[in-house]
Amino acid sequence: MRRQNLALVMAAVADAGPLSRAAVAGRTGLTRAAVSSLVDELMTAGLVAERGPAPSGRVGRPGSALGPDPAGPAGLGLEVGVRHLAACLVDLTGTVRATARADHAPQDRDPADVLRQLADMAQELMDSHPSPTAGAALAVPGLVTPDGVVAHAPNLGWRQVPAAALLAERLPGVPLTVDNEANLGAQAERWLGTGCADAVHVSAEAGIGAALLVGGRLFRGVRGFAGELGHVPVHPDGEPCACGSRGCLERYAGAAAVVRAAGLREPAGDRVADLARRAARGEEPVLAALERAGVALGTALAGVVNLVDPAAVVLGGAYAELGDWLLPGMRREIRARVAVRPWDPGALTVSALGRRGPVLGAAMLTVRGVIEDPARYASAVAAR
Amino acid sequence: MRRQNLALVMAAVADAGPLSRAAVAGRTGLTRAAVSSLVDELMTAGLVAERGPAPSGRVGRPGSALGPDPAGPAGLGLEVGVRHLAACLVDLTGTVRATARADHAPQDRDPADVLRQLADMAQELMDSHPSPTAGAALAVPGLVTPDGVVAHAPNLGWRQVPAAALLAERLPGVPLTVDNEANLGAQAERWLGTGCADAVHVSAEAGIGAALLVGGRLFRGVRGFAGELGHVPVHPDGEPCACGSRGCLERYAGAAAVVRAAGLREPAGDRVADLARRAARGEEPVLAALERAGVALGTALAGVVNLVDPAAVVLGGAYAELGDWLLPGMRREIRARVAVRPWDPGALTVSALGRRGPVLGAAMLTVRGVIEDPARYASAVAAR
Repeated sequence: MRRQNLALVMAAVADAGPLSRAAVAGRTGLTRAAVSSLVDELMTAGLVAERGPAPSGRVGRPGSALGPDPAGPAGLGLEVGVRHLAACLVDLTGTVRATARADHAPQDRDPADVLRQLADMAQELMDSHPSPTAGAALAVPGLVTPDGVVAHAPNLGWRQVPAAALLAERLPGVPLTVDNEANLGAQAERWLGTGCADAVHVSAEAGIGAALLVGGRLFRGVRGFAGELGHVPVHPDGEPCACGSRGCLERYAGAAAVVRAAGLREPAGDRVADLARRAARGEEPVLAALERAGVALGTALAGVVNLVDPAAVVLGGAYAELGDWLLPGMRREIRARVAVRPWDPGALTVSALGRRGPVLGAAMLTVRGVIEDPARYASAVAAR
Repeated sequence: MRRQNLALVMAAVADAGPLSRAAVAGRTGLTRAAVSSLVDELMTAGLVAERGPAPSGRVGRPGSALGPDPAGPAGLGLEVGVRHLAACLVDLTGTVRATARADHAPQDRDPADVLRQLADMAQELMDSHPSPTAGAALAVPGLVTPDGVVAHAPNLGWRQVPAAALLAERLPGVPLTVDNEANLGAQAERWLGTGCADAVHVSAEAGIGAALLVGGRLFRGVRGFAGELGHVPVHPDGEPCACGSRGCLERYAGAAAVVRAAGLREPAGDRVADLARRAARGEEPVLAALERAGVALGTALAGVVNLVDPAAVVLGGAYAELGDWLLPGMRREIRARVAVRPWDPGALTVSALGRRGPVLGAAMLTVRGVIEDPARYASAVAAR
């Protein structure tokens, strides 16, 4: 009971704060006395802080406004991308407190070595940051089993990599989760972006993944492998794909395919940034290749919309930077192919978080965990 | 509390019966005395009956075995198909007690007239059956809103038909639901067929729909329009579809498309039965057309499996009768296109209920409702 009430107060303060104690009582339906006692407990645990005077709307001494404690526990976000490693610390207010990034080429390296480098980056961040780290999550572009094994991440060249176990060796004492980058990007969008609870979140770059949010929760499928948008067939008799099949979406809309279709050589640096620069300059072959990619994305997403009837489709990941050129084709295809029902073109949007989504979502996973069950965090701290 | 315990006892008796009172106590964790009192209440409500001696496994007088009362309330299933109307009554044991069927051509008729005929068929069934009817559900091949309006059923030629309201006029006092036929067929499969709780259930004939069962519950999408498999694009630049788009699955795998691809004229009677007869006879063009349809179904379903990661895919509806000829192509395509993960070919099966699935599911919806909340049924009866 007290555990639930702590969570009620913490959520009110985090999602609607800064709030006075009276306002918290009003929102939660708890008595002022109960709120005061619960707030004391949350302040002792370092989760809630006085953030200055609260607007009371009434004459007299204003109550002190409560918010999540920015000096409280932070969430650690980690990411192994196709060409980069990233880490960040996010505090209880959702503010990014520290970030680190490194380029890398995972195809040429032992996965354990990659994760060692990432753990070292994370350790450095944590050492430089005064707050405790309540937990960490790792985003990877691949299929992850519930026990944190990367079953298959083709664009990293990883198969059956026990990522959770490898990271835990280097980050002892930090509770750790591993998830698909689209899943974490979708949750970041919900927590820090559009907030839509029923969305198909597309995370595209080298690979193309999707996450399905249903009532604010991830829909994972029976084995946790839902959302493999990149291998949905768009031209069944089309180009062979590295997965062994033909005509998969990735062969038409993945970054490598777009670079190839535009007649470009692989750039030394960031493929998506290079495409965006060229598109902004009006290079015709790039515009045509992006148009074709948008049509392929729209075709596959029309199938998804027909199947799962979401409230929104969000283009996230690095491809958010290509939204100006991808969206027209996507929108046209979805509208044409979702003909048996009304489809609101405004339901297709571009993520503002873009390629930062997965690592932010990874950090926010811990932050939201603390906010939704502050008692668990407090007792874990007490047990140390 | 008592309401929950009534439901516990009812479910034990219905799902594992016949059971002695002692066995019910063992399964539910309730005391023998509590079980006896709850059973008395369920017997008074006409939901549970003594079904003869129970195997006790011990020496002495055997206890009497309890089962759902076959003379208890029945569920009424109704269906408007593309070429037929159907109605059935199913008792609490899941046994079909009465059925009625009529051919019709809904495209040439006022929907209100069709529903009037169906209601008359239903009334005749109920009049001839001694048990009370606890509720009814109507299965239609189209998109249904939560308030029972058929928003669009292209193969019936229906748009914005207030089916629930029209039926209620003719069937006063019978609680009524309207749902998509694939949704009801999928639930029938769960309750009377394979029992799989996480499945994609394909219901195919003139139109092609699918239902997604997740943890035993229907996944309906934000507006209740999930599962439109028939308009998933399989050849994006392909044949124009009646929906206004191109290359939809229905254009390659729907019954009319198969008849056309086989070079046949539209048969006067049942298209699927005609195709099955010809295929069994070995008519080459029919075999080729069914192979092509299986490949198209498999292509679309590969996308579905990639997206929602189900435990099983079930071919239901009238197409279950074509399973022998459709399954090889379906299985091959799914296996080839779900290459990033293991896919068990045994996870693709044919429904044993076939085209009877939707109307049986419609009747079972009421039966399951009574079993899962017997107190609600009992109090509704008491209120009359």
